[in-house]
Parts: sequence; structure tokens; C-alpha cells
Amino acid sequence: MGPAVYVINPNSSQVVTAAIDKAVVPLRSADGPDIVCMSLDEGPPGIQSQRDVDGVIMPMLRKASELEDRAGAFVIACFSDPGLHALREQSRRRVFGIAECGVLTALTLGQRFGVIAILPTSVPRHLRYFGAMGVMERFAADLPIGLGVAELSDETRTFTRMVEVGHTLKAAHGADVLVMGCAGMARYRAALEEAVGIPVVEPTQAAVAMAVGHVRLSAPATY
Amino acid sequence: MGPAVYVINPNSSQVVTAAIDKAVVPLRSADGPDIVCMSLDEGPPGIQSQRDVDGVIMPMLRKASELEDRAGAFVIACFSDPGLHALREQSRRRVFGIAECGVLTALTLGQRFGVIAILPTSVPRHLRYFGAMGVMERFAADLPIGLGVAELSDETRTFTRMVEVGHTLKAAHGADVLVMGCAGMARYRAALEEAVGIPVVEPTQAAVAMAVGHVRLSAPATY
Amino acid sequence: MGPAVYVINPNSSQVVTAAIDKAVVPLRSADGPDIVCMSLDEGPPGIQSQRDVDGVIMPMLRKASELEDRAGAFVIACFSDPGLHALREQSRRRVFGIAECGVLTALTLGQRFGVIAILPTSVPRHLRYFGAMGVMERFAADLPIGLGVAELSDETRTFTRMVEVGHTLKAAHGADVLVMGCAGMARYRAALEEAVGIPVVEPTQAAVAMAVGHVRLSAPATY
Amino acid sequence: MGPAVYVINPNSSQVVTAAIDKAVVPLRSADGPDIVCMSLDEGPPGIQSQRDVDGVIMPMLRKASELEDRAGAFVIACFSDPGLHALREQSRRRVFGIAECGVLTALTLGQRFGVIAILPTSVPRHLRYFGAMGVMERFAADLPIGLGVAELSDETRTFTRMVEVGHTLKAAHGADVLVMGCAGMARYRAALEEAVGIPVVEPTQAAVAMAVGHVRLSAPATY
Amino acid sequence: MGPAVYVINPNSSQVVTAAIDKAVVPLRSADGPDIVCMSLDEGPPGIQSQRDVDGVIMPMLRKASELEDRAGAFVIACFSDPGLHALREQSRRRVFGIAECGVLTALTLGQRFGVIAILPTSVPRHLRYFGAMGVMERFAADLPIGLGVAELSDETRTFTRMVEVGHTLKAAHGADVLVMGCAGMARYRAALEEAVGIPVVEPTQAAVAMAVGHVRLSAPATY
Amino acid sequence: MGPAVYVINPNSSQVVTAAIDKAVVPLRSADGPDIVCMSLDEGPPGIQSQRDVDGVIMPMLRKASELEDRAGAFVIACFSDPGLHALREQSRRRVFGIAECGVLTALTLGQRFGVIAILPTSVPRHLRYFGAMGVMERFAADLPIGLGVAELSDETRTFTRMVEVGHTLKAAHGADVLVMGCAGMARYRAALEEAVGIPVVEPTQAAVAMAVGHVRLSAPATY
Repeated sequence: MGPAVYVINPNSSQVVTAAIDKAVVPLRSADGPDIVCMSLDEGPPGIQSQRDVDGVIMPMLRKASELEDRAGAFVIACFSDPGLHALREQSRRRVFGIAECGVLTALTLGQRFGVIAILPTSVPRHLRYFGAMGVMERFAADLPIGLGVAELSDETRTFTRMVEVGHTLKAAHGADVLVMGCAGMARYRAALEEAVGIPVVEPTQAAVAMAVGHVRLSAPATY
Repeated sequence: MGPAVYVINPNSSQVVTAAIDKAVVPLRSADGPDIVCMSLDEGPPGIQSQRDVDGVIMPMLRKASELEDRAGAFVIACFSDPGLHALREQSRRRVFGIAECGVLTALTLGQRFGVIAILPTSVPRHLRYFGAMGVMERFAADLPIGLGVAELSDETRTFTRMVEVGHTLKAAHGADVLVMGCAGMARYRAALEEAVGIPVVEPTQAAVAMAVGHVRLSAPATY
Repeated sequence: MGPAVYVINPNSSQVVTAAIDKAVVPLRSADGPDIVCMSLDEGPPGIQSQRDVDGVIMPMLRKASELEDRAGAFVIACFSDPGLHALREQSRRRVFGIAECGVLTALTLGQRFGVIAILPTSVPRHLRYFGAMGVMERFAADLPIGLGVAELSDETRTFTRMVEVGHTLKAAHGADVLVMGCAGMARYRAALEEAVGIPVVEPTQAAVAMAVGHVRLSAPATY
Repeated sequence: MGPAVYVINPNSSQVVTAAIDKAVVPLRSADGPDIVCMSLDEGPPGIQSQRDVDGVIMPMLRKASELEDRAGAFVIACFSDPGLHALREQSRRRVFGIAECGVLTALTLGQRFGVIAILPTSVPRHLRYFGAMGVMERFAADLPIGLGVAELSDETRTFTRMVEVGHTLKAAHGADVLVMGCAGMARYRAALEEAVGIPVVEPTQAAVAMAVGHVRLSAPATY
Repeated sequence: MGPAVYVINPNSSQVVTAAIDKAVVPLRSADGPDIVCMSLDEGPPGIQSQRDVDGVIMPMLRKASELEDRAGAFVIACFSDPGLHALREQSRRRVFGIAECGVLTALTLGQRFGVIAILPTSVPRHLRYFGAMGVMERFAADLPIGLGVAELSDETRTFTRMVEVGHTLKAAHGADVLVMGCAGMARYRAALEEAVGIPVVEPTQAAVAMAVGHVRLSAPATY
Repeated sequence: MGPAVYVINPNSSQVVTAAIDKAVVPLRSADGPDIVCMSLDEGPPGIQSQRDVDGVIMPMLRKASELEDRAGAFVIACFSDPGLHALREQSRRRVFGIAECGVLTALTLGQRFGVIAILPTSVPRHLRYFGAMGVMERFAADLPIGLGVAELSDETRTFTRMVEVGHTLKAAHGADVLVMGCAGMARYRAALEEAVGIPVVEPTQAAVAMAVGHVRLSAPATY
């Protein structure tokens, strides 16, 4: 049994983790690494603020530490990539953040990427991160759908807002590729791409695909 | 039989294609897409100049056109990504360039990437490309090993030069991750990483890993 | 008889070449270099796609090779500057691209340049090029007039759309100088400048002016 | 009694806090805000890793929460500005980070800033932060003195290394202003400036000066 | 009596100087440096053009030269920072420009700064300056209120326009902090911040706060 | 008699003006605009400091004002482009600065430009200007030859230092094109290019070539 890809959703929502798990099904193969998705029990129900981002780092590091020996790679499945560099420091394994991988993958699909955020307060946090990534020259805009947790459970409304924001990113800001600025919403990806007419990257899928590739390439022999 | 990942080495060297083929072995799985590597018969023995880069585009597009129906994704396996955008325009499939994927993958492994080129004349071409990619803020330097085709067949000498250049990129230019600026040299990757002490990205592996992930994720059902 | 400036329109349209020829009349002088404008017979009627751009490079290089001995400088008269760097590599003469010269000249006339493209599909190609040029900090926007070849023959409609797009670039994107993103439309320049109220650069004139200056300066003696 | 400037050293070292306290003496005035410096008991003896940075955020936020009502401004006195944005989110007061203020102040003293770090592992963390700040165009280099905690207590050796690194930043990287990449070392500032011959910014002083100014300006009446 | 902070308003308007003087009252302290505000008799009534900016440099340098011996720092109180680098060259004292300090202070309050200019013709001048400062990656937009001198005396109208422009900078350009692009308008700051709902920096206060801090820190003993 | 190109050397040195005049001889033609080179009597013998740069603006504007009616274009022949934007504001003619044109022309000849300055104190001034131009992504380095006025009259020594600095820019900083950071030294250009092995731009020639082109293109009829 080879090393696994551990996908850590740093919030405590089992619903989100289940959605992530479903999204990565196509990346599993009989002879490839396990892909294990898990919530972080100590995390908040959702990660909405900088405090939430910073607050999950220590428990996430502990969780990862327990998994270290069985891990081939880690994926941090929150669009603020909490603890990405601390985990890279702590672990001997490769660590992938979904925001980083989602944005970098988008750069292979269009010249200017737009981001669909959930909350307006996340936008400056994302911008700081894209600045740290050094990709602002390719950045179109980052706009929120502006729905609270309760409203997000209304899938029609959520999708409608995503399409609206996607159209604005394309028409007013010149985006030719979109990144979904959250985990656990892969079910909207294909329809959103269809509705807006430009590629849409689901960041967890992007990150797990890269993680699986890495584990396969670094395997000493075969699975 | 599902769609395949076609890896097109746009030069005519069977040796290079064989090396690429060997490098992607770990990315193959029983239930995943085929990964088919091929040379471009019309291509030059090696791609060394801007003329070589531009000259292979039309035959590469023709080759890809023939493969379109069986393709799930294309990978252009030359570090100048010749014809990347023309093929994206022509094909309904995703197209990955090894320079693009190699550099973007490097951005997940260090803060400043250095590139080991073969020839000095390739450096300004690479720089134009990194500028077009908008990643110059993360760029450390791009330095050539400066060996001709004949000398490249001397593996000891080639590796020695790669290590020298890698050390210079790290010590004098602050690179904390390296990208191999050529296809077909995956056999040096692990030893180079060991010798220089910072991660080294082999760009064809990086690109094929992303391509395989994409094909799996876009498959309507199972393989 | 001294060396000439060869202006190669890489499409096969004699109408476009005639328009270019007319536009550069004021740059001719009795004691200066000849300015010879020519179409590329092997080129498509118009250059609209990345494939068109890439496809004209090899025939353009052959044409330039034939002209080498009589040339003092080359100008590539297509706003995607096809083969610019391959020709620089091949030729001992200076090579000017109209997009490069048009944009650089615009930087002497305003702080943020806007580009009037013909087709929407050209915009990401232009953006990649401006990124490679490293001038995105001065870039306002690049917007298409969105007219097909047939519609472009309607001069009133073409001019009306140029003025509309020019106004949008100025008012909504903060452009204070415009570049015409195509060759062969110099006849609209002065009126467009008048209508929009900010300077407008015709890129072929900008490039040929620089080429003539270069040939004069590098002449061993007098003409 | 008006609101105070709280300077939180997020490590537990009383020695560092005492050094900070001494450095800000000139910024105190009879009719101005109190400047209160404190260690964070829960913090590590020194902040050396990304984990240390992330780990002090939650206790620092709690400490700041207790001080909120008496605070006019907060200063986070660690060169990685841990929790800067989380505290900005939590508090109704202005929050200053010493890295941010130190770098921005340096931009008023020279065209290219160099940073003297303590440990090599801090450099990529600093670079990510300068990227997020959007100031990489003004960045010369960030080089470590490479001394461990024990060696730092040898003041002669520490100063000697700072001067060496300062000279390298100036001569080899073109820095014309330096920032000390750590808190609690103000005692070296003037001598370092003298020895290297370009201005040197002590970041805690820079941040506290800005914080005092802010508290004075936002005071409803007088102290 | 210690060295003073000299705030030079490089226009000849006593009204503006009086407004500046009032704005810095909270930065004065019994035991701190004097803050002396003065107009430049040779300056124009207002600084509106590049010619005005350039024209005040020589008389400003002469004025500063007379004050040198009593000065601890200079503040140039015009949003184009005329003569900033010439005075830095001439004087042994620190020199602060209000545009530089205003923008840098804004970078501690939001991720993208917007600027409220007075005249449209100032905008490209500001952009050149922000480019020289290397902060364009953090720049949202710079928009003029477009009122002439006579209209500026109508405070209601001026404030109304500032609020309109502030809202546009926030809503359409994504600014999350504003800088007032002129001296002498501190009286609007708090109300503008309240009306637009994001922080507003008054640049003269920002610069004088930094200057006072500097003078205190560089004082050999006490005042 | 058509409008002339006025080349204003803003220092008072007739020797420099004579050298400029000689350098632009090849750009004169029987049927083209006159090219008139002149010193500025009120200027200093050489422009060495920011004060010198700022100090010549007002007299230069007066001189240009007198020439306005006969002018087709102005060229400011000092590598700091003093008064460039003030003259653009004042004049109805196009105004070319030799630093701007020299750098932009260099961007057509190599991917990274290096600048050979005379004095070390000019370097930060140049960097601010290149930042304002938005071209720092293409910038290699700017290094001084470090010779005073007296030493500059020793042509062998001057040339030797230029070659040394040119080699350093090429080898250590990756420059593949050089710009001479001063006016009046065209006589060294060809030999310097030969000695260093990469293209060298003489900025006054670059600017005058663009100015002549502009005057020809904007002429209502013929000369």
C-alpha cells in the first residue's frame, strides 16, 4: 500500500468534505495513490475571516503530523491556503494549496483570470495572496457572490449569482478564465463554464490532480 | 478505450522521445488515459533557435489535427512551447506546454525559480516567454549550460554543468527551485536535486501530470 | 544606391500593402533609403488567428532572405509581429515590428495606452505580447471593433466603431493615447485622433520612421 | 488618560521587549499617548519559522482583545508581522506591523531597499510578504546574517555580520537603503548606518512613530 | 530649542497654509519639535500644472536652504512632491513628500488605494509618480473631482464631489483606501471616510507624523 | 521652409552641442526638416545632480517657447529628460526626451537593457525614471563609469571605462543591449558595440530619428 494524498478541508463541515470527496473521484485509480479527504474537527463550520484562516493552522499542522508517515502529499482544501508554508516547513512531503494550484492552472487556460469569491471580505485577502504569488499581471478581478452560509444552501440562487459574477468578470474585467474561490463547489463547475462561455477551474480538483501526479512520479517503484 | 494524452516532441529525435516516454511511465495507470509519446518527423533533430521553434508549428498542428479525435489532451514537449496557442485555437482538447507547466509547478515549490537552459541563445527567448506568462516577479535567473549536441551525449559532462549552473542559480541569484529548461533529461532530475539541494522540476513530467489529471476529470464516465 | 527599408506585409492583400505604401510616403526622401512595401504571396488574405500568425513566419523568412543583401532594415507590417525574433536571428539587418514600435511610440505620447483591435480573438494574443514586452504597467485596455473582413470595407462603419472603442478606452479604461492594432488603416488616424481627443499612433508609420532613422544612422557614408 | 500605543512583541523574550522599549523612548512625550511594550507569554523565545509566525497569532489576538478598550493603536513587533490582518479585522484600532512600516519608511529614503535578515529560512517568507505588499520593483535583496540565538548574544560578531551583509546589499545588489529584518536591535542602527554609508531603518521605531502620529491625529481633543 | 519640522507649502496661498497648520495641531507636543508651516511667496496661488510643479523647485530649495540649520526635517506639502529629490540631495535633513507619505500610509490601511485628484490633468502626473514609487500593483485608480479654484471655495460642492469620486473609486475600481490628492483639505477627511465607508488618508498629516517621529528619534538627547 | 526639429542641450556646453550636432548629421536630408542643435546659455556646464535637472527646466521652457512657431518637434538632449512633461504641456509640438527614446529603442534590440551612467549619483534618478516609464521588468542594471568632467576629456580612459562597465552589464547582469546614459558621446557608440558585442543605443540619435519621422508624417504637404 503506497502513500496517500491527504486532502484536508480545514473547516469542520462534513458536507463540504463530502463534496470534495465526490469531486476527486475521477482522479482515483486502482493502481494509484489513495485520495483521502477529511474535515478538521477543530476547524470552524466555514472559513470566512482572516482569523478563521489563521486559527486553523495549528490544528491542521497537528493533523498533518499524524498523517505524515502515510502521506505522499497533502492538499489544503481551503481557498486561502491556510498554513501552506508552515506545513511545507514541517513535512517531508509535497504540500499543495488549492488557491495556488487553482490560479496556476487557470494560467494555462486564459490570459487573465477572474475569481469568484463568496464573501466581499475575502477579496483583499485573496489579493494579498495573489501579490505574494506574483501573478497580479495576469489578474482580471476578484468579485464576491455575497451570499451567507444559509443562502449558499439554496443551489439555484448560488448558481445564479455565480453566473452573474462570472459574466461581470468576463465582460467588464476582461477575464478569459475563471477560478472558483472556494472548495466544495465542484458540482457547479461544468454548468458555470457552459453558462459563462469561458473555462472554469475548480481549485480542489486542480490541486489533487497535481498531487496525484507528484506522488506517482516520486514513487520508488510501482503501486 | 478512452481518449489519450498525446505528448508531441516537436523535434525528430527518437532518443529524446524515448527519454520522455520513460519519464512518464509512473503517470500511466491501468484505468487511466493512454500516454502516447511521439517525435515529429518533419522537425529538426533538435530545437535550438527561434527559427526552429517557429518552423515546427505548422507540421505539429497537422500532426495534432490527425490525433484530435483520439486525444483527451495534448502536451507539447519542447521548452519553448512552440505552437501552444495555435494548437489551443485549433483543438477542442486541452493543450499543455512543458515550459508553462514546468514554471507554474516550480511556483509551488519555491519563491524564486531558476532555469537551466542548454544554449545561451535560448535565454532571451525564455525571458520573453516568462514575461508573457507574467511571472517575472518570481524569476531568479536563466543560465545556459552551454553544451552543443555532441557534448550533450556525454552524460557526466552534462550533469556536471547542470550542477554548476544550478549552484550559481541558487547562490548568486537566490533561486530556491529549479526548472530544467529542456525535454528529455528527466534521468538527471533526482540527482540534480540532491546535488544542488533545492527542488528541481522536470517540465515534461509536470505537464503530463496535469494533462492526465485533466483527462480524468473531464471523462464523462469511467475508463 | 543604398540599402532599402523593406516593409513586408505578411498577408497577401494588395489593398493593404497599397494602403501601407501610401502611409509611408512622407517618410521617403530623395537622399534617403528606399522604402519598399510588399505583400507576401504565400500569406493568407488577412491575418486573424494565431495559426495565421505562426503560418506566415517561414515564407516571410524566405522572402526576407532573398532581400537581405539589398536591405538596410526590415519592417514586419502585421500587428502580431510574426517572426520578429526569428528574422532578427536570421538577418544581419535591424528588424522592426509594427506592434512593438507602435506601442513603444505610444509610450512617448501618454501614460496609459489603449489598443483598438479588429477581432476579439486577437486580444489575448496582444496581451501575451505586451507581457513579453514588459509594458503591462502602462497598459489601459485592448478592445476589438469586432468587424469581419466584409464589414471592414465599409469605411464609415469601421471608423464609427473605431471612435466608439476609442472613447471607451479613454473614458472607462483611462487611456490617454491609442494604438491602432492593425496595419493598413493609416487613413483613419488623423480623424480618429480628432474625434477621440487623444493621440493616436499608426503602428506602421511608427515602425518605418524608426527604420529609416536606423538606416540613415548606420550608413557608412552618404546616399 | 488617553488611549495607548500597545507594542506587542509576539515572542516571550523579555530581553527583546526591553530593547524595543528602550528604542521607542524618544517617541514618548508628556502630552502624547503612552507607549506600552510587552512580550507575549505564550510566544516562543524567538520567532524563527513560519510555524512560529502562525502559532503566535491566536494568543496575540487574545492579548490584543484584552487591551482593545485602552488602545489607540497596536504595533506588532516581529518582522513577519504575524496576525497583522487578523488583528486589523478584530480591532477597531489601527494596527501597524513593523515589517510593513519598516519597508514603507525605507521607500522614503532610497530607491532600492535591502533587508538584513537573521536566518536564511526567513528570506522566502519575507519575499512572499514583499510580494503581497506589491513592492518588489523597489527590492534589491534580502540576505541573512546567519547567526543562531546563542551567537546573537555576541554583539561584536552580530554587528560585524550586519555590516558585511549591509555592504553586500549595497555593492552587489544596488541597495541604497537598508531595513533591519528583526525587532529589538535598534542599538546597532546608527553604527550600521555609519559603517555601510547608506540609511538604515529600524522597523519598530518606524512603526511606533507612525502609530503615535495616528493616535494623536485621531484623538477627539487633547491628552 | 531643538530642530523644527518645516512644512513648506510651495504655493503662495495663505489659506492653504493655514489649513495645513490647523491639520497638524494634534501632532504638536510640548516636548517635541516645533512644526512650522509656511507658504512659498514665489509660488503660484495654486499648483495645477507640471510647469507649476517644476517652477517652484528652485525657490523652494532656496527657502529650505535658509531653514537648514534650524531644521530637523522638511515636509513638502504639495501632492506632486516638487523638488523632493533635489532637496534630499541638498539637505542634511530628512525630507518628506506628502504624496509619497500619503500613498505609503494608505498601503497600511487597504490593499488597493484610490486617489482623489482635483484636476484631470494631474492624473497622468500622479501615475508617473506612482510608477516611480513602484506601487502600481496596489493602485486602484486616480480620478479628479474636476473643480476649478473658484468652485473649490464652495465647500458643499467640493465635499459632494469628493464623496462621488470616492464612491466610484470604491465601487467601480475596487479601492479599499483613499488618499486625498491635495494639501490643505484635512477638514473633509473624517466626513469623507464616514460617507464612503473606507479609510481616507490626508497626506500632509501622514507626512508630518512621519517627520515628527524622525526628528524625535534622531535627537541626540531630549528637547 | 518647413518646421524644424529643435534639439535643446540643456547645459551650456558648446562642445557637447557640437558633438550632438555631428551625431545627427546622417538624419538630415535635403527635403526633410532642419535639425537645429543648441545649448542652453542659462544651463550649467554639465547636468550632474537632481538640482541641475530641475534648475534647467524654466529656462528650457522659455527657450522652447521662443522656438514654438518654427518648431515641428523638440528633443531634450539630456539623459534625465528635464522638463519633458512641462514642455509637452506647454507646446503644441511633439516633444522627445533622449532617455525615453533611448530606452524604448533599446527595447527593440534586446530583452534586458543596461545603462552606462556617468556618475553614481545619477543611478537612483535613472531608476525612478525607468519606474515612471514602467519598464523595470526589462531592466538589467544601471552602472556608472564614475569619471568627473576633467577625466571625461581623456577619451581613451572614458572609452576604456565604458567598455568595462558594458562588459559587467552583459556578463553579471544579463544585459543584451546597452543605452549610453548621456548626450554627446555618439563618437564612442560603434566602437563600444564592437568591443562589448551587444547593440549600443546612442539616445540622442534615437530621439532625433523619431522626431524627424514625426515631423515628416505630420507635414500637411511636402517640404
